[in-house]
Amino acid sequence: MVMPIALLEKSIDKRVSLLLKDNRVLEGKLAGFDEYMNMVLEDTEERTANQEQRRLGSVVLRGNNVVSISII
Amino acid sequence: MVMPIALLEKSIDKRVSLLLKDNRVLEGKLAGFDEYMNMVLEDTEERTANQEQRRLGSVVLRGNNVVSISII
Amino acid sequence: MVMPIALLEKSIDKRVSLLLKDNRVLEGKLAGFDEYMNMVLEDTEERTANQEQRRLGSVVLRGNNVVSISII
Amino acid sequence: MVMPIALLEKSIDKRVSLLLKDNRVLEGKLAGFDEYMNMVLEDTEERTANQEQRRLGSVVLRGNNVVSISII
Amino acid sequence: MVMPIALLEKSIDKRVSLLLKDNRVLEGKLAGFDEYMNMVLEDTEERTANQEQRRLGSVVLRGNNVVSISII
Amino acid sequence: MVMPIALLEKSIDKRVSLLLKDNRVLEGKLAGFDEYMNMVLEDTEERTANQEQRRLGSVVLRGNNVVSISII
Amino acid sequence: MVMPIALLEKSIDKRVSLLLKDNRVLEGKLAGFDEYMNMVLEDTEERTANQEQRRLGSVVLRGNNVVSISII
Repeated sequence: MVMPIALLEKSIDKRVSLLLKDNRVLEGKLAGFDEYMNMVLEDTEERTANQEQRRLGSVVLRGNNVVSISII
Repeated sequence: MVMPIALLEKSIDKRVSLLLKDNRVLEGKLAGFDEYMNMVLEDTEERTANQEQRRLGSVVLRGNNVVSISII
Repeated sequence: MVMPIALLEKSIDKRVSLLLKDNRVLEGKLAGFDEYMNMVLEDTEERTANQEQRRLGSVVLRGNNVVSISII
Repeated sequence: MVMPIALLEKSIDKRVSLLLKDNRVLEGKLAGFDEYMNMVLEDTEERTANQEQRRLGSVVLRGNNVVSISII
Repeated sequence: MVMPIALLEKSIDKRVSLLLKDNRVLEGKLAGFDEYMNMVLEDTEERTANQEQRRLGSVVLRGNNVVSISII
Repeated sequence: MVMPIALLEKSIDKRVSLLLKDNRVLEGKLAGFDEYMNMVLEDTEERTANQEQRRLGSVVLRGNNVVSISII
Repeated sequence: MVMPIALLEKSIDKRVSLLLKDNRVLEGKLAGFDEYMNMVLEDTEERTANQEQRRLGSVVLRGNNVVSISII
């Protein structure tokens, strides 16, 4: 059995894709997270619906807005 | 009586279909879950409304976005 | 006084109709539930707005998406 | 001072009208409730916006979908 | 400093106007409340957007649907 | 570091502008608040989208509907 | 591993960009925060969708409306 937290720990310093509740997708290096699944992404890029990109740098994300985290 | 957690445990390493609050459907092998019903799916595919598929690989899902888990 | 949990316990192995927050209606045999009102339905059928049916088999439902449970 | 729980206890076995978050109105005999304001209604009828009625029998309602309870 | 609970206590048996999350406005005599801000209104009238009134009598309101309470 | 609670304490008896989740803006004298950020405003005025004003007097606001508090 | 709280502490007295659930973006100097991610911004400016700016001065933000915090 792979616990969700264990997979996140294995993904530290790897690039992940985060889907947020408002349908935004952020890609970045997973730098850290806490027990509420608040997360820190570095070198973050936001991909909007019309395939534009926007560089966001370091971002703190509130866990309760995160839908899913995909390992890229 | 079949407790929800017991059915999830029995479904480990089996393919399941997850319905999310935003109406997305993910199919994948249930690799793990925790007490908040956060889940790990492997070999995940997303099925959108217009029957397209998208491969997502390993995905961590936040439990509070999950509506239902069907055993395939 | 009939406690909600007591009525659910009496309904184990009986067919129930579940209304979810997204207006979907699921009918199935209530196999179990926990203290968060997460539920297990078996031989589940989904009834959509336009009276179609879809067989879902065994389903785990997150309690916080359940609006009401009717005993059929 | 009339505590909310005290008014509910006084309403046991009386007919009440429940307004849910999705604007549905259910009328029935209040058979019980718990500390989360989950409720049991018996001889329940649903009244939709266009004044139709639908008989639902015994219903368990999740407290977090209840907006208000009126004593009829 | 006037604590929210203190102002509610001072308003017992006075008429208040309650704004709910679904934009409904209820006016009535505040008969009681609990620590979740669940409330009991008596001689309640609902005022809809188009200035109609509807008499509701005694009503229990779930605190998490209340936006604000104005002292009339 | 200025803790959120410390700034609110410093704002007692000063006029503040409250943005609510439903986009309503209330201006009034901050009379008090509790640990859930429930608040008491006095001499409250509501400003609607079309720049109308409505006098509301003393108002208790539920913290979970408050988005932000600006010191005027 | 960079914990979310650690990145916020490092950002004290630096300018940050806050995305709120209602899509508003606030820029300001991060003056403080608490364990619920309630935040204090100073010299705050709101940027609306149509690139207008509005000066808001000192603002307390409720953590549960915050989606993400970007370090500018």
